[in-house]
Amino acid sequence: MAISNAIANFSMTVHPELLAKAKALEPKLYERTVLPQRIVSIAPDGTVSTIQDLPDGQIQAGPYTRRDKVSLDFGEHMVGYLSLTVESTGSPMDAPCFLQFRFGERPLELVEDPDDYDGEISRSWIQEERIHLDRLPATLELPRRFAFRYLEITVLDTSAKYQAILKDISVRTVTSADMSLVPPLHTQDPLLQRLDQVSLATMRDCMQSVFEDGPKRDQRLWLADLRLQALTGYTCVHSTDLAKRCLYLFAALTQNEGRVGACLFHNSDQVDDTALFDYSLFFVSALLDYWQASGDRETLEELFPTAQRQIELSLKDLDARGIVRDKDTWWCFLDWGEGLNKQAGAQAILLFALKQAKEMAEILGKADLAKEWADTIERLTAASLTHLWDAEQGFFVSGAQRQVSWASQVWFVLAGVFDKDDNARLLKRLQKADPSPEMVTPYMNHYYIQALLDSGLKDDALAHLKHYWGAMLDAGADTFWEIFDPEDPTASPYGSQLINSYCHAWSGTPSYFIRNYFSD
Amino acid sequence: MAISNAIANFSMTVHPELLAKAKALEPKLYERTVLPQRIVSIAPDGTVSTIQDLPDGQIQAGPYTRRDKVSLDFGEHMVGYLSLTVESTGSPMDAPCFLQFRFGERPLELVEDPDDYDGEISRSWIQEERIHLDRLPATLELPRRFAFRYLEITVLDTSAKYQAILKDISVRTVTSADMSLVPPLHTQDPLLQRLDQVSLATMRDCMQSVFEDGPKRDQRLWLADLRLQALTGYTCVHSTDLAKRCLYLFAALTQNEGRVGACLFHNSDQVDDTALFDYSLFFVSALLDYWQASGDRETLEELFPTAQRQIELSLKDLDARGIVRDKDTWWCFLDWGEGLNKQAGAQAILLFALKQAKEMAEILGKADLAKEWADTIERLTAASLTHLWDAEQGFFVSGAQRQVSWASQVWFVLAGVFDKDDNARLLKRLQKADPSPEMVTPYMNHYYIQALLDSGLKDDALAHLKHYWGAMLDAGADTFWEIFDPEDPTASPYGSQLINSYCHAWSGTPSYFIRNYFSD
Repeated sequence: MAISNAIANFSMTVHPELLAKAKALEPKLYERTVLPQRIVSIAPDGTVSTIQDLPDGQIQAGPYTRRDKVSLDFGEHMVGYLSLTVESTGSPMDAPCFLQFRFGERPLELVEDPDDYDGEISRSWIQEERIHLDRLPATLELPRRFAFRYLEITVLDTSAKYQAILKDISVRTVTSADMSLVPPLHTQDPLLQRLDQVSLATMRDCMQSVFEDGPKRDQRLWLADLRLQALTGYTCVHSTDLAKRCLYLFAALTQNEGRVGACLFHNSDQVDDTALFDYSLFFVSALLDYWQASGDRETLEELFPTAQRQIELSLKDLDARGIVRDKDTWWCFLDWGEGLNKQAGAQAILLFALKQAKEMAEILGKADLAKEWADTIERLTAASLTHLWDAEQGFFVSGAQRQVSWASQVWFVLAGVFDKDDNARLLKRLQKADPSPEMVTPYMNHYYIQALLDSGLKDDALAHLKHYWGAMLDAGADTFWEIFDPEDPTASPYGSQLINSYCHAWSGTPSYFIRNYFSD
Repeated sequence: MAISNAIANFSMTVHPELLAKAKALEPKLYERTVLPQRIVSIAPDGTVSTIQDLPDGQIQAGPYTRRDKVSLDFGEHMVGYLSLTVESTGSPMDAPCFLQFRFGERPLELVEDPDDYDGEISRSWIQEERIHLDRLPATLELPRRFAFRYLEITVLDTSAKYQAILKDISVRTVTSADMSLVPPLHTQDPLLQRLDQVSLATMRDCMQSVFEDGPKRDQRLWLADLRLQALTGYTCVHSTDLAKRCLYLFAALTQNEGRVGACLFHNSDQVDDTALFDYSLFFVSALLDYWQASGDRETLEELFPTAQRQIELSLKDLDARGIVRDKDTWWCFLDWGEGLNKQAGAQAILLFALKQAKEMAEILGKADLAKEWADTIERLTAASLTHLWDAEQGFFVSGAQRQVSWASQVWFVLAGVFDKDDNARLLKRLQKADPSPEMVTPYMNHYYIQALLDSGLKDDALAHLKHYWGAMLDAGADTFWEIFDPEDPTASPYGSQLINSYCHAWSGTPSYFIRNYFSD
């Protein structure tokens, strides 16, 4: 995710003891060396064709001179550092060698000209470098980390007298996921096997010093992404320390009034000035998830006050009826859908988080608090049914326009306002009515799958998993994309596909579902 | 100089003991800190106007976001390393800061787009860098050295949430010239004072680890440039060690048959594969100049065999008549003039160098060799007068087309084929006839001034010095340019002004003339 509004009078409070615990959990990075598999040609529509296979990964490309270029396919999505050797041939090197590197998670990123990009998100995320080499031969590792499968190297110039040879091209990949711990997958279904592989690659490449939302962009810890990738990490690589580190970071670097930020910049110990109603509450969810995965009571105790504070702050946003106040700003995320009203979803997520907070209060023996929250849950549930439930339509409505959206229904199912059977009926009605706004992100689709599973609609969940993420495989995904609309695979919330993230944490949960619900 | 033909079957011979002596003479670099003097606007025609004066050199530019840019004038030509601090303002930095730097010796270099450049010389010499800063604040010194007075910094992007502030912008200049040694100049003539200042700046900025031809381009030791800048260095900063180092480099890294290359790459201990008849012979001239400036007999003795070898190789190029064979290739430089035939100039330079070689042989007590060369001089002089002197026209002619050029006359004057008075009359006829090809480089104009001085035409020499180099001052020169035609100040032998060198060693000799001939 990347777009946000700054909150007014933003300030950050640093809790040094919590920050120290987060820093002590800086993870080890696991490295691999990946070699290019083929020299390719990428057509203007992004179609890739093989020019030359590189069976042993060895390449000696060139001799190249002004504007010659080579495009390479490494065969898999990677996050890491590019190394290469550049030599000269011909006369002695009499001018610098000027090189341009462009990196693409998908081929289409290499066919659009970054100089033409004018989207909302910073162009600085487009993965490109220009370097001058004053002396050859030179062996170099580019200092910045890139996320890519495809690499285009253009020799912007050598001179009329010498040419450049490119060789020993390799990538040193990095991840904090110990992939040797991934348990064997027990399914004979080839589509589930493939979904699991791509999901694991997505998780691996997003697990770095923190759970990054996307290793291409924003390379940052967002709370909603963290929750989903932590769930996948618990399931697939028994990783609890990275989630613990990230929870401590959020608790250590808080916004005004102790609010947990929507995201933070771990490299600079800085919380962002974006606050999102749902994201703050997911600190509660992520903490309970962590406790369930780790049984680490000390952390639960230490971070519970931060979770409690998110509940308290959210309750301030209720109106006299007990309904979360709607706003014109970008105050709550839910999904990227155009025109999506957030009120009902926010109300449901507050109920969802309240129930998790109450569970933690009970675990920690805070009976008074648990009782207080139980009363609140009862009051908010009643208010929701009175003011947001449209019995005639059989749907929850949101905002002044009484919008019926997928997101509102899904979140009220997850909030458990109705029982399992009523929830199942609601979801069936939802499928039939197919209201607009629809869901547009894998993130929202994750919660839909979870809602189906929680409602006993396991076949529907499996079918939708295969339909939605399977369509991404059909579209060529090596890792799961930030945004995907099967009806419009070129969609971008940012005005250009060039800037989309094609390896995105919140999209990488198929392994979580497959391994927890759909294995033999 | 930059264009060259590779010689056939090129090989290099390394003389390790000579190379070791060259390396031992690696000079100390003197540094200064230069601050920007004003923020400027540069019009498409290169006209500079002040936006803001920076009286104390301190700047805090910004806040800048996508495509904002600032152009700075440092008030003088410099060779060195750019430092700056980049800070962010606004929301926390949520995307890399992508910056572009462009450096211009002259303003016009900043108005043409390097991406549009398609000239013959490598685009890699155009001074530009693009860098991503992943974290701010950042204080950085760009690792590559640049030659410039004008700097344009473009913020290619920040993000919608934060802006960049540029501050503490400074340049750490480098030169191996100890400018504290420059003697006071004794003249009341303000034009000569200004010519001397610009000439000294040119010398200073070309004096680096070796005598570079141009610090922007080619950053390399060319023999003809070396000779002229060494003369200026002897006069202005009592520098003999750098000339000695350069002579040892040429002697240490020789081409086929022991030929001294036209240029060499000192950073890689590599002689170029370009051979030029005149340039090889200037090793003889430069060695004698060095002896006269230093009295260093040991070096004269050690390098004399290299000088002798250049004479021997050049004599192989004589035809049966005793005239240097003309060729269709780029075999001899003389000047950049279009269609200039090189035969007569080459013949004259051979005579010029033979006389210097004979003088060195006499100094070293090599009487037999001196006698042999005296005979050769006599034979070549007679052949020149028989076959190249057109008594009817009163000019030397060159090539099958019997071309009358400025270069041919100037070099025969310098070769001393006629006596001083006849030479003076020849130069007066030349001025009157003004044949084409004319002289186009400061380099060739240097030798014209020297010819006038040698012929007793001191007033003409002074007038031409003021006319030619003075016109460059009028055109805005802070250092003297590689190429200059007062009738066409936009001329480039390379197809674009963008790639011209505007601080060029072979143009920096006015101080040599002023201090040796025109001071009080």
